[in-house]
Amino acid sequence: MNAEIGTAGIAGKERIALVVGLGLIGGSVAMALRGFEEYVVIGTDKSAAVRAFAAEHGVCDAVAERAEDVLPKADTVIFAMSPAGIAAQLRRFRDDFKPGALVTDVGGVKTAVMEAAESLPDTVDFIGCHPMAGKEVSGIENAEKALFAGAHFILTPGARSTREHIALMERMGKHMGFRDTVITTPEEHDALIAYTSQLMHIIAVATCDDDALFRCKGFEGGSFRGCTRVAALDVPLWTELFTMNRPALCACLRTLESNLHAYLEVLESGDTEALRRKLAYSAARKRKMDLE
Amino acid sequence: MNAEIGTAGIAGKERIALVVGLGLIGGSVAMALRGFEEYVVIGTDKSAAVRAFAAEHGVCDAVAERAEDVLPKADTVIFAMSPAGIAAQLRRFRDDFKPGALVTDVGGVKTAVMEAAESLPDTVDFIGCHPMAGKEVSGIENAEKALFAGAHFILTPGARSTREHIALMERMGKHMGFRDTVITTPEEHDALIAYTSQLMHIIAVATCDDDALFRCKGFEGGSFRGCTRVAALDVPLWTELFTMNRPALCACLRTLESNLHAYLEVLESGDTEALRRKLAYSAARKRKMDLE
Repeated sequence: MNAEIGTAGIAGKERIALVVGLGLIGGSVAMALRGFEEYVVIGTDKSAAVRAFAAEHGVCDAVAERAEDVLPKADTVIFAMSPAGIAAQLRRFRDDFKPGALVTDVGGVKTAVMEAAESLPDTVDFIGCHPMAGKEVSGIENAEKALFAGAHFILTPGARSTREHIALMERMGKHMGFRDTVITTPEEHDALIAYTSQLMHIIAVATCDDDALFRCKGFEGGSFRGCTRVAALDVPLWTELFTMNRPALCACLRTLESNLHAYLEVLESGDTEALRRKLAYSAARKRKMDLE
Repeated sequence: MNAEIGTAGIAGKERIALVVGLGLIGGSVAMALRGFEEYVVIGTDKSAAVRAFAAEHGVCDAVAERAEDVLPKADTVIFAMSPAGIAAQLRRFRDDFKPGALVTDVGGVKTAVMEAAESLPDTVDFIGCHPMAGKEVSGIENAEKALFAGAHFILTPGARSTREHIALMERMGKHMGFRDTVITTPEEHDALIAYTSQLMHIIAVATCDDDALFRCKGFEGGSFRGCTRVAALDVPLWTELFTMNRPALCACLRTLESNLHAYLEVLESGDTEALRRKLAYSAARKRKMDLE
């Protein structure tokens, strides 16, 4: 543990929340979680440079050099890395969690993570979690306390998750600034996230593959920025996320292809009235959905 | 002219800028243009309710009941309606402009507008204009002075446009809060706007045609909001914009179909390394483009 803000820093606090992995999301979780109830927020990362940054910038209450030094004492453990990394950590620490601990994650796919969590002992309560926020840049230097403001806090409790732990997660989400907590199954999460998040990332990268990309500077407006913002994605992470949710994502992509092609056909037909009707249909759907 | 802020309101001012059409864009132009150099900004709209709203909310320095009452005295006339509407107004007022007047517009396609402007007499300088900003809601009640902050002000001068008028437009753009002025040809404008704006709107509406739309509330994040925001579009306006730029838009849509399909193929192949390489390629393009 960091000497400066080690044991002294946790005096008077009763519970430990350990964040393993201090990247963009883990760092932001730690920052946003500080001050939550009686918890001391301890962060750790395999990179010494990241730990030094976290200690210098007060990302957590304390920084631990190794997860294994804190994990057996932690009441809540949050794994903040890619889904494959989370699965590996759950295997690695399988027998080291404090009995009764709440263990959670921030992975963008939930079926694979919940499957990995099934191997945990009965004394550990794993609640899957997907904070629906992000940035097109990664790393602790881009972490921010307010990253989750207005975002959904999605939970996929396990079969033996307690009402108390779910309530605790909800309070944590509220403290971190999330708009609301959404409780669902891993399967529903992955099916819907394929549409609301993964497909948007495929649209963004495919749009940037157009030859016009480097000619269009000066001609872009809000719609272009909004659609392509996420194209500068974290390549290893998204390769993993797409691969782990491939059937659902491919199904969404086929639906989009078909819906785009229907627009191409009506445009090429020159039937202005049909185009007008089609636009009215889609625009009305969007208005009905009424986000915010 | 509105009695309250009629002739008295323009005392001491030397020049008149007339905004014809006070919808979202025209209203915002009028608000943003107020206080520009020695200009008095007069607005007019065919709807009495819109004129009353404009007068009540100080959208312009003065509100005129009929364009023809002010147009022959106006040094600058800005037509703010759909491109077909702009063409009709140019025909209607062909012989009524003040000699030496600068006439401009806000239309989202420029080839058709510039063609319509060719019929104006030699004494009128028409400079096509596309303020690259908007909202997913229309009408003067949604107009705002800051709508153009950070946006591009695209100009397509005519063959006989003077350097003085182009410089005047640039100063107007700066006063209205635009980030910069981009000078181009109508053809280049329409080709690039098909990609940066029209295609984004087709993506947004096609995405909203997915059956998952009404099930996904609670699962959407920034990427979904960013991509679908513009789907709630002004149907008659966008029917017209798409139709007037059909060949360029269809070409962009075909390119997108092909680029999306390449992603579908690599996903379905299960070749994770190929997916990683493809994502790295697209993400690097986006980073290289470096918007803002």
